[in-house]
Amino acid sequence: MTIGILGGGQLGYMLALAGYPLDFHFRFLDPSPQAPVGRIAPRVSAEYTDLEALEKFAHGLALVTYEFENVPVAAARFLQKIVPVYPPPRALETAQDRRSEKGLFQKVGIPATEFAVVDSANDLEQAIRKLGLPSVLKTCRLGYDGKGQWALRTREDVQRVKKEIPAVPLVLEKFVNFSRELSILAVRARSGETAFYPLVENHHRGGILRLSLAPAPRIASALQREAEDAARRVLEELDYVGVLAMELFECDGRLLANEIAPRVHNSGHWSIEGAVTSQFENHLRAVAGLPLGDTRTLGNCAMLNLIGELPEPGELLAIPDVHLHVYGKPVRPGRKVGHVTLRADSTGQLEQRLRQLPSFFHREEFCLSQRLAHSAKYL
Amino acid sequence: MTIGILGGGQLGYMLALAGYPLDFHFRFLDPSPQAPVGRIAPRVSAEYTDLEALEKFAHGLALVTYEFENVPVAAARFLQKIVPVYPPPRALETAQDRRSEKGLFQKVGIPATEFAVVDSANDLEQAIRKLGLPSVLKTCRLGYDGKGQWALRTREDVQRVKKEIPAVPLVLEKFVNFSRELSILAVRARSGETAFYPLVENHHRGGILRLSLAPAPRIASALQREAEDAARRVLEELDYVGVLAMELFECDGRLLANEIAPRVHNSGHWSIEGAVTSQFENHLRAVAGLPLGDTRTLGNCAMLNLIGELPEPGELLAIPDVHLHVYGKPVRPGRKVGHVTLRADSTGQLEQRLRQLPSFFHREEFCLSQRLAHSAKYL
Repeated sequence: MTIGILGGGQLGYMLALAGYPLDFHFRFLDPSPQAPVGRIAPRVSAEYTDLEALEKFAHGLALVTYEFENVPVAAARFLQKIVPVYPPPRALETAQDRRSEKGLFQKVGIPATEFAVVDSANDLEQAIRKLGLPSVLKTCRLGYDGKGQWALRTREDVQRVKKEIPAVPLVLEKFVNFSRELSILAVRARSGETAFYPLVENHHRGGILRLSLAPAPRIASALQREAEDAARRVLEELDYVGVLAMELFECDGRLLANEIAPRVHNSGHWSIEGAVTSQFENHLRAVAGLPLGDTRTLGNCAMLNLIGELPEPGELLAIPDVHLHVYGKPVRPGRKVGHVTLRADSTGQLEQRLRQLPSFFHREEFCLSQRLAHSAKYL
Repeated sequence: MTIGILGGGQLGYMLALAGYPLDFHFRFLDPSPQAPVGRIAPRVSAEYTDLEALEKFAHGLALVTYEFENVPVAAARFLQKIVPVYPPPRALETAQDRRSEKGLFQKVGIPATEFAVVDSANDLEQAIRKLGLPSVLKTCRLGYDGKGQWALRTREDVQRVKKEIPAVPLVLEKFVNFSRELSILAVRARSGETAFYPLVENHHRGGILRLSLAPAPRIASALQREAEDAARRVLEELDYVGVLAMELFECDGRLLANEIAPRVHNSGHWSIEGAVTSQFENHLRAVAGLPLGDTRTLGNCAMLNLIGELPEPGELLAIPDVHLHVYGKPVRPGRKVGHVTLRADSTGQLEQRLRQLPSFFHREEFCLSQRLAHSAKYL
């Protein structure tokens, strides 16, 4: 069975590495002729809007999936006429627009952050009157890794932002005084079977994920059930097939939905070593019509993103149960070029191993030192 | 770093899948243009004796290793003049000749099966007088998966075999009334650091490995130490770098060395899911000059080889913690086309999951039913 994947970045790369043992073949489509998957699978270099290329790409494929959430919905719908596309293009469409996403949360009854629609500078004033400050202004589309967002703390921030508001649909979100950011990875098979990974604790810096702890320390079972229930509602409403990530805020012991990603997700990378079945294998099992794999965890994990630079591997790999993943992309500032997963048998052993990491990982941007300073509280 | 690998079969395939996350690139050399690694890495199709092709192959490589133990030693020595070759060609040379191999065991003081050199029909009679019947006659070179072996139980067997003895060096081995076949996977880094996986219990049928249990059930710690000590002596004598497999017989609570393989080994495939670091990753870490990874096991595993046919994946993958590995080779009778690993938290849970396997796996050739019938004894 040959699976077509739209997008040829690290998520596609890891899907292919997980899928070869299951006897899947892959074909990728990515506009960039430098996409790293080209090393391990056939890659078509074409724009997502090139219908002729899409048609050629789809020839002989058993199904198409995607690893990039900003694939144009029109491309997914076009392909759907030729070959099954999972997750359904409607999931892509919903996740690409913050208003649709928030509408979905409302429809299925999931608590989410308060928001107001903003189409102009005037709307912004009205939205601020409704929600107050601090708030966060976000573009509805194409925001990622902190781009397309403006934190509004003071009236001065508002005045400055009003001058630079782009002429695109926006939403204003009430600033949530959350205690931490969590995410849950969920998967739904073609048969309707669902499975869930444990809640993960995420730390961002500059809008980019830096550190995930899996399972998130100190999660009451009721909170895990709440997260699974929310994710299940989304999966069923969208008649979803594949892995879906849901980002959440923990506030006063409750969860608020922030956003969904209709694909495998950076906060699930720990599952390669830390779960019986990785998110990558489970996504492929789901879209290919196979039974889902066990999502049970194997100990405790921490995942650290490598942004814009790689560590010296020798010192790192001398620590037991450390796993390095380099994506084979040209190393450029601000770019996710790899990640490291530490696994341990207990939170205590995990903390000990995190402290053993080379100084490279104790710089502020990894969020590790700050997190370890809190360890009396959580770990 | 680009690593050259001689041989493009499933072992090379699994080395590449394990090595990409560590930022290794690969280039394979295999005489067959159908070698399955071609799907995931650049492959040079050339004979191992084609020096011009070898020289071109080596260009720009950081080092060369091999996944096939019958690579001509001359090819490894030729490459060694251009680029580092690990494991050392002397290990290849020793493992390719049963007499050298037995000489090595004697030199380093490892108990092994009694044997006698046979170069002619006359020698055979003399050897039988020395060792008695039953015995096993084996070619010194190019025997694998039960080929090049003759079991001699009676005088009639001897008379028949005398007529068909090939004109090549042979050894006669005294038949060992072993209680079971075991193997140990060992790894030595460029720094001299060593690590060992636990003893594995192996079941063969028609000379081909069918079933491995890892760790081998009911192994006294003294036996594990004895196996590690034997493997360490071989590693050090050969100034070895990489993974080495040693096959052993358990007789009356002691170990007899049978043979070594200077490469990753079929009886180590369970380590992909069942150990903190797989044999494939550890081989690459060793040859690349990185620290070795932790060889600790994660529960109990059974590995079943898929010979000449593949099971229906849906039924199989519905069992928790079952992992399918298909090698992407054309399916032909007698050919290793994949393997399945079951992992469990205890031997009891493993046994339960083995019993849940589809009927496909309970046919005689998988050795599973017979093994499970013995479970009161071992598992």
